[in-house]
Amino acid sequence: MGAANGYEQDAAADQDRGRSLLSGCVFCSIVARETPAFIVASDEHTVAFLDVRPVFKGHVLVVPRQHLVTLGDLPTDLLAPYFAAVQRISVALPVALGAQGTWVAENNIVSQSVPHLHTHVVPRTKGDGLRGFFWPRTKYTGGEAQEYADRIAAALGPA
Amino acid sequence: MGAANGYEQDAAADQDRGRSLLSGCVFCSIVARETPAFIVASDEHTVAFLDVRPVFKGHVLVVPRQHLVTLGDLPTDLLAPYFAAVQRISVALPVALGAQGTWVAENNIVSQSVPHLHTHVVPRTKGDGLRGFFWPRTKYTGGEAQEYADRIAAALGPA
Repeated sequence: MGAANGYEQDAAADQDRGRSLLSGCVFCSIVARETPAFIVASDEHTVAFLDVRPVFKGHVLVVPRQHLVTLGDLPTDLLAPYFAAVQRISVALPVALGAQGTWVAENNIVSQSVPHLHTHVVPRTKGDGLRGFFWPRTKYTGGEAQEYADRIAAALGPA
Repeated sequence: MGAANGYEQDAAADQDRGRSLLSGCVFCSIVARETPAFIVASDEHTVAFLDVRPVFKGHVLVVPRQHLVTLGDLPTDLLAPYFAAVQRISVALPVALGAQGTWVAENNIVSQSVPHLHTHVVPRTKGDGLRGFFWPRTKYTGGEAQEYADRIAAALGPA
């Protein structure tokens, strides 16, 4: 279903099917071509397909073939190929759909509907009624911002 | 202000100041240490600092030192270092703040408040009142999903 860009080698397909069987994950099942999806792109490391309940039509999910849960689980050597795929979709959507921009997002653990890393790439048009941030914003008082910065820097440790 | 992790070489600092002068961009000015910010991490390619109007306290913005507007403008050789910095923040926030997860997002063009690529990394806790997706979702009818998939795949071209 949809346009499949390469990656049809038998050994790799077997690996995808094995992962799907082991994980019982719907995104692994889409990667293995067991569950139908509207796939818009795929390569050695990633598969991109339409979200069936789009925020706006053309809303794409980009997943790694490997069953990884969060952004933190993505191995260093997959950072470039994974985000290159996300970047390609983000550049293509405005061209494909006459949109002006995109909204790109990952939910890690909280609000993450499927526990397989996925990046939402949503086409955006001015006046589309979706503000990227319409949640109430809060403010830091007193030395609070410094305190938060210090806590985060401490958790990060040396670069 | 905040904890600065290295990167204080004079030549590099001069380059940051030059970019800030040329772009007139507030994030370039933060990168060049001209505009104060609560910086939580910095390295050769990126700077991470607190959003002054956080969705939740501890909300961090990760920017490339280079003045790039959108995700599509990020050069291939910066994909790994840039998203490694985003990943580090996404892993550190729950540890630092006792949160359970994160929400990671970029707005490209539409809803992009500052035209310098920045990734929001927001700490998330179950029941925090922020649903990652509480916008009304839409549906595809008839052959519409296939049509959208085909348009996107066509814009992408061969892998």
